[in-house]
Amino acid sequence: MQDGCQSRESELEQIQASILKMGGLVEAAIYDGLQCLVTRDLEAAAVVREGDRAIDALGRHIQCDLPRIVRLCAPCEGDLRLVLAVLRISTSLERIGDYAKNMAKRTSMLAELSPIEGSDAALRRMAREVQNMLRDTLDAFVTHDDGLAQEVLLRDRDVDQMYNALFREFLTHMMEDPRAITACLHLHFIAKNIERMGDLVTDMAEQVIYLVTGQMPDEDRPKGDTTAYLSKLE
Amino acid sequence: MQDGCQSRESELEQIQASILKMGGLVEAAIYDGLQCLVTRDLEAAAVVREGDRAIDALGRHIQCDLPRIVRLCAPCEGDLRLVLAVLRISTSLERIGDYAKNMAKRTSMLAELSPIEGSDAALRRMAREVQNMLRDTLDAFVTHDDGLAQEVLLRDRDVDQMYNALFREFLTHMMEDPRAITACLHLHFIAKNIERMGDLVTDMAEQVIYLVTGQMPDEDRPKGDTTAYLSKLE
Repeated sequence: MQDGCQSRESELEQIQASILKMGGLVEAAIYDGLQCLVTRDLEAAAVVREGDRAIDALGRHIQCDLPRIVRLCAPCEGDLRLVLAVLRISTSLERIGDYAKNMAKRTSMLAELSPIEGSDAALRRMAREVQNMLRDTLDAFVTHDDGLAQEVLLRDRDVDQMYNALFREFLTHMMEDPRAITACLHLHFIAKNIERMGDLVTDMAEQVIYLVTGQMPDEDRPKGDTTAYLSKLE
Repeated sequence: MQDGCQSRESELEQIQASILKMGGLVEAAIYDGLQCLVTRDLEAAAVVREGDRAIDALGRHIQCDLPRIVRLCAPCEGDLRLVLAVLRISTSLERIGDYAKNMAKRTSMLAELSPIEGSDAALRRMAREVQNMLRDTLDAFVTHDDGLAQEVLLRDRDVDQMYNALFREFLTHMMEDPRAITACLHLHFIAKNIERMGDLVTDMAEQVIYLVTGQMPDEDRPKGDTTAYLSKLE
């Protein structure tokens, strides 16, 4: 029985360590993906794209490992919540990694187009904020700090607001200069992808709250992306 | 023991029924979301947006119920795989529902803008294909048919190709007529959202394969969205 307990604890520690490792890789992918984009560095972009395989492999490994771990810890509700939260968090991390890879993919295309003034700095700010949110969420996961996770939920609104501002800016550019359309369109997708990364981090933060409190936070927090309603420029 | 077995079976049936119910709602949301968009029907759009709450509530309910169910079925690896697949599938369904809601949200904005010729029919085709893929994936889930799930994986390429064609078309429109930029931009997002729904259905199909075979399918299937590389129009 003692052995069972020990292996249960070490397995749970192991799975948390895997999430942290995956989270660290994803955090780096966000940074590197944006970095290669703004420096138009094609080699660095290839590294980011290649690196996504490791993230996906870790995600698959976590999921395939979970049934075995559940068998060790089944009687305890807290353990089971941890396992379910781990699965959902690893799914979110995989998707954030995909967005980072997609960002890196657009490097070669942006390298051929004229830069759009101010866009690099704005995207960098957005990406940095999402990176910080991700780091805090991983901290909240490890320390079981639902207060910190709750804070992350609120901060996602800032990311949404940055996205809204960029949406308007790109639209203005496109209307003023049709030659900027292709570049703006791609930059636009990148901004939207970063905004979606923020949503996925938010989903992770909700999982931390579920893990700690046993309750899923209420879904009705205000949504920050208002561009779906934007038919005209102010 | 007999009782335990019976309740285990009925719980597992129950959770599968919940997934099917959620899947049915999401399927309808894709159809209705696209329908209100092309008919510019604001009331129907409000119903789709409101309906997303039911989808999210079902998703939360499934996740919160799983620890209890796991306690009933823990010793059996097949059961545990089912539980994990259920969680991941319900997460994907929630996200597809979010995309359908987002589609409906854009109705009021598109109603104010001049229509873009041919776009409604193209979006309808894309959405119909994703809807069919979703239905087949749910069938494959219930009947444990990994062959059918494998077929769905392949069909996602068609959706990606439809998206690529639309991307080029919208880009051409925008360049030819700057007054079409705002409408094309929104239609573009809608097309991208449908393409992402296809990716999420693909993720669900992979979960069915994992459920039936115990193996996650290899990640390296070809990716169909090539627009990240598109800097010029052919």
